Amino acid sequence: MSIVIQKYGGTSVATPEKIKAVAGRIAAAKKSGDDIVVVLSAMAGETNRLIELARTAGAEPDPKHQDLLVATGEQVSVSLMAIALGEMGIKAEPLLSHQISILTDSNHGRARILGIDTKKLVRIIEEGKVPVVAGFQGVTQDGAVTTIGRGGSDVTAVALAAALSQVSGLMSHVLCEIFTDVDGVFTADPRICEKARKLSRISYEEMLELADMGAKVLHTRAVEIAAKFKVPVHVRSSFNDSDGTWVLPEEVKVEDALVSGITCNLNEAKVAIRRVPDKVGITAKIFEPISKADINVDMILQNVSADGYTDLTFTVPKEDLKRAIALSEVVARQVEAGRVEAAGDIAKISVVGVGMRSHAGLAHRMFDALAKEGIAIQMIGTSEIKVSIVIEMKYAELAVRILHDAFQMERP
Amino acid sequence: MSIVIQKYGGTSVATPEKIKAVAGRIAAAKKSGDDIVVVLSAMAGETNRLIELARTAGAEPDPKHQDLLVATGEQVSVSLMAIALGEMGIKAEPLLSHQISILTDSNHGRARILGIDTKKLVRIIEEGKVPVVAGFQGVTQDGAVTTIGRGGSDVTAVALAAALSQVSGLMSHVLCEIFTDVDGVFTADPRICEKARKLSRISYEEMLELADMGAKVLHTRAVEIAAKFKVPVHVRSSFNDSDGTWVLPEEVKVEDALVSGITCNLNEAKVAIRRVPDKVGITAKIFEPISKADINVDMILQNVSADGYTDLTFTVPKEDLKRAIALSEVVARQVEAGRVEAAGDIAKISVVGVGMRSHAGLAHRMFDALAKEGIAIQMIGTSEIKVSIVIEMKYAELAVRILHDAFQMERP
Repeated sequence: MSIVIQKYGGTSVATPEKIKAVAGRIAAAKKSGDDIVVVLSAMAGETNRLIELARTAGAEPDPKHQDLLVATGEQVSVSLMAIALGEMGIKAEPLLSHQISILTDSNHGRARILGIDTKKLVRIIEEGKVPVVAGFQGVTQDGAVTTIGRGGSDVTAVALAAALSQVSGLMSHVLCEIFTDVDGVFTADPRICEKARKLSRISYEEMLELADMGAKVLHTRAVEIAAKFKVPVHVRSSFNDSDGTWVLPEEVKVEDALVSGITCNLNEAKVAIRRVPDKVGITAKIFEPISKADINVDMILQNVSADGYTDLTFTVPKEDLKRAIALSEVVARQVEAGRVEAAGDIAKISVVGVGMRSHAGLAHRMFDALAKEGIAIQMIGTSEIKVSIVIEMKYAELAVRILHDAFQMERP
Repeated sequence: MSIVIQKYGGTSVATPEKIKAVAGRIAAAKKSGDDIVVVLSAMAGETNRLIELARTAGAEPDPKHQDLLVATGEQVSVSLMAIALGEMGIKAEPLLSHQISILTDSNHGRARILGIDTKKLVRIIEEGKVPVVAGFQGVTQDGAVTTIGRGGSDVTAVALAAALSQVSGLMSHVLCEIFTDVDGVFTADPRICEKARKLSRISYEEMLELADMGAKVLHTRAVEIAAKFKVPVHVRSSFNDSDGTWVLPEEVKVEDALVSGITCNLNEAKVAIRRVPDKVGITAKIFEPISKADINVDMILQNVSADGYTDLTFTVPKEDLKRAIALSEVVARQVEAGRVEAAGDIAKISVVGVGMRSHAGLAHRMFDALAKEGIAIQMIGTSEIKVSIVIEMKYAELAVRILHDAFQMERP
């Protein structure tokens, strides 16, 4: 018998009918003998509707007041779910963050969870009831309602699992299920690569690299908390009963594959500053205005110097490209560098896998496969378990399929 | 300088635009030097929308879960109001009942307020901020969210005023303004009687009798609390700046008029049981099934006995008439009474005024005025400061005008 934290997202609770369907699923899990804790997002579209309302009431809503407003979204879902469960004879207890002290800091709109008081939660579970917790929100020491950022219900679910796993005697019995609109984590996007295979297991570390890259099935902060407290997380579809993907510690037997996933990001653009004088501190100087403008720089590439000059290339989100070019041109003149070039028609392809750590030849196999198809690599970046390359956008889907084949990822 | 509790109903905050208009009004009041505490209802239509959602999720929603759901309505209004006030440079603090401990019993859907902790409220006022309190809701000792019934925001506003008036030194400085969609309390419905006059003052007692009768500008429970704590209440329009009607203790100089208002209720129906044997306890026996069926009996009339039999007549809400007839027919057979007669086409006209207490001739003047116009009186009931009569429905508006003239109510 386990304690299973089940998180359902906005599309799974979008209408009273869908809520009833999910209630049926919860009732079945409960009847199978497990203790169930439910975490819900707001009904799909509701958070945006509320934010729109706030903007109509005031051009720059106080984040504290907006949080109080937006938090009604999850309050509605947990109330409706408790009603639907009650209809099925399951005793449910809808819970807001102040009722179980999901304590956060006071960074409204993007608060961090500081702690959860599990006493009330454990008592409700022991009474045989199903706690239905409002995701995405918390409460400060002063009693103000906070929200923890988009995708925050994942964070709430994993944080609850982590907190419950710390309760004496429960550690090995707590797991977290994230119900979403996909079947799990795939080796590549199935819409691009028909050979893409659903992974039955993946390590926290790989999941972090994949999540960052656009395989948006589980919020990065949720993975970080799961990793820290070693909470097993099961990412699965809310529309069928198939097993999804288990996100587990690496020590647990992870699949033998060298590479576990390939991701493709089309939302980045590239900026290159030519002939940058190769002096100490010059890179910092160049990135200062871009960082101050809150532009998120992802890859940075600096070629080795030739005749005292180097080329500096980096990627930024496409929507920030214009600002990045303008800022770069100013700073390029200041440091007496050459011209600024930019391109929006690029794709960033990343290959992720713990196997990379021990297999030096992987990057080579990747470059080789692309070269055979005549795809030019514009940039390369690597981390311990990931190799990312930038190529021309039109080759993006082809590259994903080529690499999927090259690493024989269709095989478990 | 006073502490003014301002309550705005659902129609006054129905849209972000209307919320901004109300915010302007609050800002003006605040700038005039008073301390303002705002109490809000949900945006018009929102409570019904949420109840509809609940019924879609489950046929018989647990009242506790429905309360948690419905309470989001006022949470949305107070958040939006705080945002709108912020936009105007007024520091506002939206407050839910658990944040200022509006403690209630746990009768979900119709909870009673047990007490309010004014400490936080007083602190916020002293900081120069405007507390914006969610009306209609409370919290139990266990932290469960409750609602206090339809029209409950009036109750919240007056209860807050009462609680603040108990804080040392504030007593004589607290007053309550109920902003609504009418200009105040009138001597009769202005749509029926063009001579109807807005009262500048009325006593709590008169207001209670009027509110009961359909002059639905202030919730009965709110008047009861105001009377108990002697809170001055100003009922006024949210669409203009005119003075409305002050509801005050009788000791305070109330207008000299004998009669302060005439109300007309078209929602009652009449049931008569003929030839009821005149025995001890028989009335109780007859009303037992009707009371058990939760049918609200208003007027009851029993003629003096003749030859050991009497006629028993009473009024019930029109929507309960069928059930009342069926139950009466069963009980009539049981007690060996005669036939049951019923009529839905009746009107109940009430004349209310503290002047009644000392002027015995008032009832006579009323009957006389109606007789002169040939309007037959079917039933008569009296309380200390009210005379109610039942007449044929088609004469309702005429009767209101006749009585308004007879008591010269157009004169202050």
